[in-house]
Amino acid sequence: MKVSKTVDEVRLITKQWRAEGYTVGLVPTMGYLHEGHGSLIERCRKENDKVIVSIFVNPTQFGANEDLGAYPRNFERDKDLCEKLGCDLIFHPEPSEMYVDPHAYVNINGLSDYLCGKSRPVHFKGVCTVVSKLFNIVHPHNAYFGEKDAQQLAIIKKMVKDLNFDVNVVGCPIVREEDGLAKSSRNAYLSEEERKSALCLSRAIKKGQEIIKNSKKASEVIDAMKAIVNEEKDAKIDYIEVVDAVTMQPISEIKENVLVAMAVYIGKTRLIDNFTWEAK
Amino acid sequence: MKVSKTVDEVRLITKQWRAEGYTVGLVPTMGYLHEGHGSLIERCRKENDKVIVSIFVNPTQFGANEDLGAYPRNFERDKDLCEKLGCDLIFHPEPSEMYVDPHAYVNINGLSDYLCGKSRPVHFKGVCTVVSKLFNIVHPHNAYFGEKDAQQLAIIKKMVKDLNFDVNVVGCPIVREEDGLAKSSRNAYLSEEERKSALCLSRAIKKGQEIIKNSKKASEVIDAMKAIVNEEKDAKIDYIEVVDAVTMQPISEIKENVLVAMAVYIGKTRLIDNFTWEAK
Repeated sequence: MKVSKTVDEVRLITKQWRAEGYTVGLVPTMGYLHEGHGSLIERCRKENDKVIVSIFVNPTQFGANEDLGAYPRNFERDKDLCEKLGCDLIFHPEPSEMYVDPHAYVNINGLSDYLCGKSRPVHFKGVCTVVSKLFNIVHPHNAYFGEKDAQQLAIIKKMVKDLNFDVNVVGCPIVREEDGLAKSSRNAYLSEEERKSALCLSRAIKKGQEIIKNSKKASEVIDAMKAIVNEEKDAKIDYIEVVDAVTMQPISEIKENVLVAMAVYIGKTRLIDNFTWEAK
Repeated sequence: MKVSKTVDEVRLITKQWRAEGYTVGLVPTMGYLHEGHGSLIERCRKENDKVIVSIFVNPTQFGANEDLGAYPRNFERDKDLCEKLGCDLIFHPEPSEMYVDPHAYVNINGLSDYLCGKSRPVHFKGVCTVVSKLFNIVHPHNAYFGEKDAQQLAIIKKMVKDLNFDVNVVGCPIVREEDGLAKSSRNAYLSEEERKSALCLSRAIKKGQEIIKNSKKASEVIDAMKAIVNEEKDAKIDYIEVVDAVTMQPISEIKENVLVAMAVYIGKTRLIDNFTWEAK
């Protein structure tokens, strides 16, 4: 397995791979890899001749008051996991390699108006831009993203369509701890007590999944989920919303496929979770 | 020469070309081709194994009050010229092929603040987006743009750098009528009388080129050029500005390489012209 820090080298290697007829799969990450990332890399390994994992804490997707500086990093551990999972190349650039007096950007309307886009107004512009850059550098046949970041996945799928990227975007299921907590690099921020409180997210998800079977009203689902989170004194709801699974617009009556998504502060740590529901 | 109206077919053909080791050159146009476009196609023909000309009047780069509906079209004549100049493929999509409920876009800060970007606020967002789409569909090795649209050229070069497009952007010199008027599809709008008035642009360019040799003050260049345009009663200045050739920011003292650019209404027709100057 090779580690490269430069755009030019990664471009050269992946160009050579494509010229030799290999299929190339990309797993874009911000590092501090957990089993959720692991599942993306494993799927990528199965479906492609060559596997690239990018490890880059992208500064442009963090707002001014967010956790860019504190975001957990452990490159040596990440490298070991990638090696173990059969990755061929890690792209691990410095911010100065990715951004030189940047002026051009990629952004999206509509799909970023609610959920995380509402509380993190610059976030998806940063995501769209860095993913576009990675696509242009690597030209992957397939790119793998976790369904935990459901809005991100919907936005990237729409961006790929709208801008005609020749990339197949693959969403992979949420991976959870045994007690239900969705795997996240940000779980590292939690104290022992907060770790227990954080279970209110997956409890609320379970409750939502029960309620939605027999309800057509988004408000009933949301209220039941909110009640569970509000029982937890460490927890503060950022949002719990029901949106159309494609357009990411809030809906009140559940008749199309929907995404039920939540973001909750546990102490100072903002965690997200979600489920999708196919209306019959 | 083949004509294709679909993204999928063009993608397939160009992918095959690249797989066979051919270099691919793209000339993006809005059609109604003149000798300026011809010079781009000729240069593209010389420098690439395969030549694609896209002919697409891109609605998203026109403002609500601009000339989208009136923009001149003559596909049969364009096709003949492309054939004559040795083009291999024309991409001639309908707007509905290029835009299906679009939400994602590409845009640029800073470089679009002045000159045409100031009077046409949505223009360069439309240009960046459609050029990104064309790059993603065709994956050309080289792409050819006219220097008449100097701000567009600077913006596309910066966009390619910032978003890591693997495309070499080639700028080609302005082609002029014998009497000096820069070739433009919009010259077709001019009445016989306006056609004469329109010469004030190239006269002002000539004057500017004289003055700049012995002046370090942008205002002296601008004033001399404005005086020439203002002699013409049909002419109304949109802007005459001196900007840094890379950043497109206005400058007052001429010490770096600069772009001197102008936009002037002749009657209802908005024409542009420019020259660059390498400060010693």
